[in-house]
Amino acid sequence: MPLIIPATQGVLAIKVSRLTGFPLGYAQLEKLPDGEKYVRISTDVEGEDVILVNSFAHNPDEMLIETIFLIETLKDYNAKSVTGVFPYFPYSRQDRRFIKGEAFSLKIVADLLRNAGLDGMIVVDFHLHRLRNLTSFFGFEVKNLTAMHKLAEFANENFDMDDPIVVAPDEEAVQWAKLVADDLSLNYVALQKIRIDAENVIIDSAPKEVEGRDVLIVDDMISTGGTVIQAIKALKRVGCGKVFVACTHAILAKDALRRLLECGVEGLVATDTVLSPISHVSVADIISECLLKMFG
Amino acid sequence: MPLIIPATQGVLAIKVSRLTGFPLGYAQLEKLPDGEKYVRISTDVEGEDVILVNSFAHNPDEMLIETIFLIETLKDYNAKSVTGVFPYFPYSRQDRRFIKGEAFSLKIVADLLRNAGLDGMIVVDFHLHRLRNLTSFFGFEVKNLTAMHKLAEFANENFDMDDPIVVAPDEEAVQWAKLVADDLSLNYVALQKIRIDAENVIIDSAPKEVEGRDVLIVDDMISTGGTVIQAIKALKRVGCGKVFVACTHAILAKDALRRLLECGVEGLVATDTVLSPISHVSVADIISECLLKMFG
Amino acid sequence: MPLIIPATQGVLAIKVSRLTGFPLGYAQLEKLPDGEKYVRISTDVEGEDVILVNSFAHNPDEMLIETIFLIETLKDYNAKSVTGVFPYFPYSRQDRRFIKGEAFSLKIVADLLRNAGLDGMIVVDFHLHRLRNLTSFFGFEVKNLTAMHKLAEFANENFDMDDPIVVAPDEEAVQWAKLVADDLSLNYVALQKIRIDAENVIIDSAPKEVEGRDVLIVDDMISTGGTVIQAIKALKRVGCGKVFVACTHAILAKDALRRLLECGVEGLVATDTVLSPISHVSVADIISECLLKMFG
Amino acid sequence: MPLIIPATQGVLAIKVSRLTGFPLGYAQLEKLPDGEKYVRISTDVEGEDVILVNSFAHNPDEMLIETIFLIETLKDYNAKSVTGVFPYFPYSRQDRRFIKGEAFSLKIVADLLRNAGLDGMIVVDFHLHRLRNLTSFFGFEVKNLTAMHKLAEFANENFDMDDPIVVAPDEEAVQWAKLVADDLSLNYVALQKIRIDAENVIIDSAPKEVEGRDVLIVDDMISTGGTVIQAIKALKRVGCGKVFVACTHAILAKDALRRLLECGVEGLVATDTVLSPISHVSVADIISECLLKMFG
Repeated sequence: MPLIIPATQGVLAIKVSRLTGFPLGYAQLEKLPDGEKYVRISTDVEGEDVILVNSFAHNPDEMLIETIFLIETLKDYNAKSVTGVFPYFPYSRQDRRFIKGEAFSLKIVADLLRNAGLDGMIVVDFHLHRLRNLTSFFGFEVKNLTAMHKLAEFANENFDMDDPIVVAPDEEAVQWAKLVADDLSLNYVALQKIRIDAENVIIDSAPKEVEGRDVLIVDDMISTGGTVIQAIKALKRVGCGKVFVACTHAILAKDALRRLLECGVEGLVATDTVLSPISHVSVADIISECLLKMFG
Repeated sequence: MPLIIPATQGVLAIKVSRLTGFPLGYAQLEKLPDGEKYVRISTDVEGEDVILVNSFAHNPDEMLIETIFLIETLKDYNAKSVTGVFPYFPYSRQDRRFIKGEAFSLKIVADLLRNAGLDGMIVVDFHLHRLRNLTSFFGFEVKNLTAMHKLAEFANENFDMDDPIVVAPDEEAVQWAKLVADDLSLNYVALQKIRIDAENVIIDSAPKEVEGRDVLIVDDMISTGGTVIQAIKALKRVGCGKVFVACTHAILAKDALRRLLECGVEGLVATDTVLSPISHVSVADIISECLLKMFG
Repeated sequence: MPLIIPATQGVLAIKVSRLTGFPLGYAQLEKLPDGEKYVRISTDVEGEDVILVNSFAHNPDEMLIETIFLIETLKDYNAKSVTGVFPYFPYSRQDRRFIKGEAFSLKIVADLLRNAGLDGMIVVDFHLHRLRNLTSFFGFEVKNLTAMHKLAEFANENFDMDDPIVVAPDEEAVQWAKLVADDLSLNYVALQKIRIDAENVIIDSAPKEVEGRDVLIVDDMISTGGTVIQAIKALKRVGCGKVFVACTHAILAKDALRRLLECGVEGLVATDTVLSPISHVSVADIISECLLKMFG
Repeated sequence: MPLIIPATQGVLAIKVSRLTGFPLGYAQLEKLPDGEKYVRISTDVEGEDVILVNSFAHNPDEMLIETIFLIETLKDYNAKSVTGVFPYFPYSRQDRRFIKGEAFSLKIVADLLRNAGLDGMIVVDFHLHRLRNLTSFFGFEVKNLTAMHKLAEFANENFDMDDPIVVAPDEEAVQWAKLVADDLSLNYVALQKIRIDAENVIIDSAPKEVEGRDVLIVDDMISTGGTVIQAIKALKRVGCGKVFVACTHAILAKDALRRLLECGVEGLVATDTVLSPISHVSVADIISECLLKMFG
């Protein structure tokens, strides 16, 4: 039976261990006063299939180095395989060069993990705009699960929506909006986003058909909240009803949550891929199901 | 002529550029609200020998990922070679496993840099306790320069020392104390350190011969200041005179500087490998001299 | 009708505004690059009763200065009254001097708020060990609400407890454990805590009667988790069943959540006085009820 | 003889103690895991004149609360008087309301210190644009010392300037530029700054007379470096020679130092009112001289 080891942002490991029945192993992880990370595997991993759980939110670089230290050390001590459960994966938006001279960050991160010895990886709603085959991009098997069905279920049970319509705040979000709309037997519309820079976007207008109807905005990730806030303003300008928001990854950088609420959002939900105050839905069960298929 | 590119902690690059006459290139380096680093090389590096300057103090993991992004991108754009000038190098104390299960951190970091494509590296007073050959350990040429001669010169000119003796606060510091003592034609003694854990050490006693004499404590690095503070207390117990401290790398984690001064230190000096309030000596000239030999 | 203004950690204000029907006002709050806070009231407050909502978790000193700036400015612009809704109040444990020379922190903070012009305050489960009358201590009316009934209700509906008993991890927690036990018609026991220092405690033993029974640990606050973790270990040594934890304020400093889960906790719940991944219960309704009585 | 007590950012206290011969007292200052500050005076202060040394750079709000805790506790233990030595004083730019609704931050901070019981204060090159009488503004005696003579001396001895002219980067800096120019028997010119927002300014042009001449830019404070960088660009556009910069307070927020150096600055100097990599001049002697006059 595989062994589940939680890293610093790997609290999901405990739920997954209970749901799968796979035992927990331990790693000692300390940040020293000079900023260096001390890493030690305290469980015997010789010959074991190890499932390493971590999230890369908020301080992705520190988590990457920690994860690489863990994978390398697990392999040094002869773990049979190391599978990463990384529900939130960083640098996914830099999946190509947009301007000459840019680092191809996602490719570099993929290489780091593969070179460290990672054998496979489970991610959730990977920000997948241009890439179509993660397994060939990463060079090891990648399973990309979706939390959209669980978010749809939560919205249906908890949000008091009247004649609702699903809204994708930009073209990239259509893939997610569609999943939720299908589950709820609703229509969806997509807004048009103009990106100014990394932190600023403009959404000019919303279609007339949202007028008088409650809206459920669906996206994979809320970072600064800029896109969703622009979407809400555009929707309100054409007279929409109540506004609800569902996303998988709630980064909520700086004062994003306060600004979202000040825009008049009625309800918000995200999953626990990133632990946040709006993480009302857990992905532990869909990850456990996937692990049971792989190692059952 | 090679091109010098400063990374986030690479202000030394500017001085080195002036001393060598090698032109500066530029990289755009931004930390996004979600914690990800945006990296872009803004200078044409095709066919160039690039000298990348960075320090890894305070947030070593973030600086490591940034450095790897830079090296990979420089190579993608066909830089002829990339030489790292990393005056302060992190994870140097974890140069083997002390306990079963530990990450062999320095080895992993070495592999990351070599796999990224680094061709050579200049470091200063690398915390070298057990390793003897950095070039074979890293797999590319490593030049380990010393700032001890410059620190000795500064101490001689600025510290008002009466019948002084050089003190190595522990066995590992003897290599540095010796260099300074030789330059100043002084004797040196070494104290005995017992390490309790990563943050705590004990130094029991100091030799009688320091009684009534001013002391110059020499070490490669001051992190939390624990070792030096223990040394000062032991030296004062046997009645030493005034206390001066010289080191290459002043990390000065938390309130180290205040605690050192409260111990009664008369004078402190460090270099600019790590920028600190006691960085009175620059290593820009010894780095420039080395670069001129390599690329002149 | 009073005006509700959210400060940086005041997202609860939005829910309270909806429940009470009191309108929202706005304050512009920015942290400048040099660390200074810029504060501006953007709503006309002349003659208004203002309800200022803030929490003091994680960076209490910064939030205190911000709150003082807000109160002073509201008064400058002739707000009729300023009532603080501060669900989590800091420095409550330093409610006297334990050793000679200590700052009487809570008294100083109380004076700062009173001098700034605060007219009244609503707090939730104030860490009230020695103080009995908050209104006379603060010098303005203080209403101390409890979230324990809501936590009891949540535990009853969501935790699968078999023959449960409520546990106060120390004497100070008995007041909270009692409330929850009463609501659930259960017994409670109190453990004995020995405090080593600010971060470390020991709990030696647990009474035999918890053997074989599920336990619901109840406290006002989880900071580093040290007390609760010691309690769990003591309870497990005498053979308790499943362990659940309920508290009002989930500070969860450093890796508290991971360490709690690694101890084998089955379920955890806290309120939204501090926003955390376990904030499954909202205090917005009990605060709203109180405000409606005051201003309705 | 008065007692000197260093707070968290009060390392200057040690130098001042040596220069004045006034003994050092101690305060225990710890930041707890939940962010609260623990403050304890460990020296008997009954009947003593206490000199409290602190700086407010980088995290001014935390330092303010710490300072208030210290003053209140010193007074509780019957210190005869408490004089603050606060070489860098925060919130000095918000010395009035620029827009309706703004907090009058400096006034509020002044009130906090006076109400806490502060009896007098020494500051250095207080950012004094509109205020003319600090003593009446603060309500206790304020001595505002200047480091400009020491900066002038340093520049004269260390900067290799050819036919130099002193430059005030904006109107507000004229008061400092004048002092330096007088000391060095040089002329000075002032540039015109247009402020866009808290972080951005524009300096359009520089007078013809700087053409071909080395310039010494003088200001009280460098925060993000925006003003000085704009000044350098304007000066270079009209063909100035080498550029040197002198200021009292080097906040150097974010990557200010790197950006300054990339602009081609030849030499930079600041004092130790804020500890920085360019703090080459100490204000300990001018502070000591002032204290000796007050308490000698």
